Amino acid sequence: MSNPVLVEVLRGALIESRHRGSVAVSDAGGRLALALGDVERPMFPRSAIKAIQALQLVESGAAARYGFGDEELALACASHGGEPEHVSTAERMLQAAGLNASALKCGMHWPMHQPSSQALARSGGSATALHNNCSGKHAGFLCVACAMGAELGSYIEATHPVQREIKTALENLTGAPIADEDRAIDGCSVPTWAVPLTALARGFARFGTGEGLGSERAKAAARLRAACAAKPWHVAGTGRFCTEVMQNLGARVFVKTGAEGVFCAALPEQGLGFAVKADDGGTRAAETIIAAALARFLPDEHRAPLQRYLQRPIKNWNGIEVGRIRAAEALGSFSARGCR
Amino acid sequence: MSNPVLVEVLRGALIESRHRGSVAVSDAGGRLALALGDVERPMFPRSAIKAIQALQLVESGAAARYGFGDEELALACASHGGEPEHVSTAERMLQAAGLNASALKCGMHWPMHQPSSQALARSGGSATALHNNCSGKHAGFLCVACAMGAELGSYIEATHPVQREIKTALENLTGAPIADEDRAIDGCSVPTWAVPLTALARGFARFGTGEGLGSERAKAAARLRAACAAKPWHVAGTGRFCTEVMQNLGARVFVKTGAEGVFCAALPEQGLGFAVKADDGGTRAAETIIAAALARFLPDEHRAPLQRYLQRPIKNWNGIEVGRIRAAEALGSFSARGCR
Repeated sequence: MSNPVLVEVLRGALIESRHRGSVAVSDAGGRLALALGDVERPMFPRSAIKAIQALQLVESGAAARYGFGDEELALACASHGGEPEHVSTAERMLQAAGLNASALKCGMHWPMHQPSSQALARSGGSATALHNNCSGKHAGFLCVACAMGAELGSYIEATHPVQREIKTALENLTGAPIADEDRAIDGCSVPTWAVPLTALARGFARFGTGEGLGSERAKAAARLRAACAAKPWHVAGTGRFCTEVMQNLGARVFVKTGAEGVFCAALPEQGLGFAVKADDGGTRAAETIIAAALARFLPDEHRAPLQRYLQRPIKNWNGIEVGRIRAAEALGSFSARGCR
Repeated sequence: MSNPVLVEVLRGALIESRHRGSVAVSDAGGRLALALGDVERPMFPRSAIKAIQALQLVESGAAARYGFGDEELALACASHGGEPEHVSTAERMLQAAGLNASALKCGMHWPMHQPSSQALARSGGSATALHNNCSGKHAGFLCVACAMGAELGSYIEATHPVQREIKTALENLTGAPIADEDRAIDGCSVPTWAVPLTALARGFARFGTGEGLGSERAKAAARLRAACAAKPWHVAGTGRFCTEVMQNLGARVFVKTGAEGVFCAALPEQGLGFAVKADDGGTRAAETIIAAALARFLPDEHRAPLQRYLQRPIKNWNGIEVGRIRAAEALGSFSARGCR
């Protein structure tokens, strides 16, 4: 049984490439508003759950203790482009806890944001762990470890209190018990836990509404959502999907990408959570799928900022429009199931 | 009807992503040695047919007139990384015809080879059309246009003699008539023509053996294959799949990648041509599929250089092995059809 084609890539009049995938939309009680493809197979949410991984930063009191505002909290939820202000914000977070970049265990890579990467090279600089797209998340982990008096050197290990607490929070939000064998290692070396899309969607409905969460956790989720809505550039960066969608829709939407074609999102006013996986791991596909799914549940007057992702031009090196990426028919003919 | 899963991407013990695709292997007479998935649907071969696009450079006498050796001919067949010697070779080709980079209409982009891109930025330089991965092909087109006395400014147009001749050569090699509506525009602005995988595979069997071709064309194909076997670094670059496979296997194999998950290849000694398309356009998938298909038809003693592509480790930013990309079962259980 194969997942449906959800995204088509055209060149001229021909479909050149096809992306299959799955998507689940759920309310906080676990009632599915939408399910397309295999939504019960456990999959790694990767960076799409950075906001869940950041809950402790607020709940533990570390964010308050170190005086973090919207920028630092948004960066803790971010897969950022390594632009200069992303880097300086991560550095500031570490400094607040008396640390520096040498404490980061995410590994280093050049800025994903090309102009920043070129500027760094042009200035004679080199990539550091601060440029890693996960440096804000890791700075947050270190701040939590500091605040709880835990060992710092092993903060990325599955047995460390910071990572154990994240697993518990993920189980709490999704309602899905997670088996030890469903663990793998993420790109930045922390554990990633496999969860079905249905459970992830439910988890983001809870993250978006606070329904079904303890009051401290609900408050922490609301604080992180407010930070990302206030500083969406810190969640991704210039020209990036998550940033642009949250810039245009504000607190009405929370949306976060993850590697290998994953997206999680929430529409707090609609009480819905979203989880998407492109079978092949393609980002262009996952962006199109989540945009179509969000557009379906937003009222007409707020749908416009998502329309451009449902049919995007492909331009070549000379700027000539040679094709487009579009949501396939299956995404337009969702049949609502259950609820709301 | 969906194409089979040909490549699986594991993280830990779980399959994280899946790639579907199709592959055809044919002899010069059009007898299929292998067919998996939909091999009759027209698809754009993109840069995988650069060697066919370069036939004229030899056949027209332009290569001889301008004194081109293996490096220039290999670069005309290349999607190169924009490393310094790629750039200087393209420049030399243009100079031989009395031209310079301003004649190139491929558009500009930064070198695909990251260290070269960083070195260029560090030196205060900027991307030019010479860094475009297609600059060798375009330099070749311009040399042909010069040699035939054709207009230079419109060499990328479908109506230009250079592009018309390429369409005729593609029809001649593949045996497939190409309709005008099966044309689209490639990333570098030249026409790309849609052809079924079966026809492309047959075309590369002919390219690899000369069977079924006129003697001038057969000689030109042999000259281009010899150039690529002698200078495989010029066909792609440092660390790249096409370069490494041809470095290891020499003239026993010709292999060339194209955008959106395409590969074409030939095994001259076996008399076979290959054409691959990953449904979703993923390069990691297409590399795995073509490696598996080539390995299947090579004798045991020459298979080793391809084995590493059938099961590749995925390492994260800290160099930890977190998963692997592997050929799926369907690629190992090919059932040979017909011929040889």
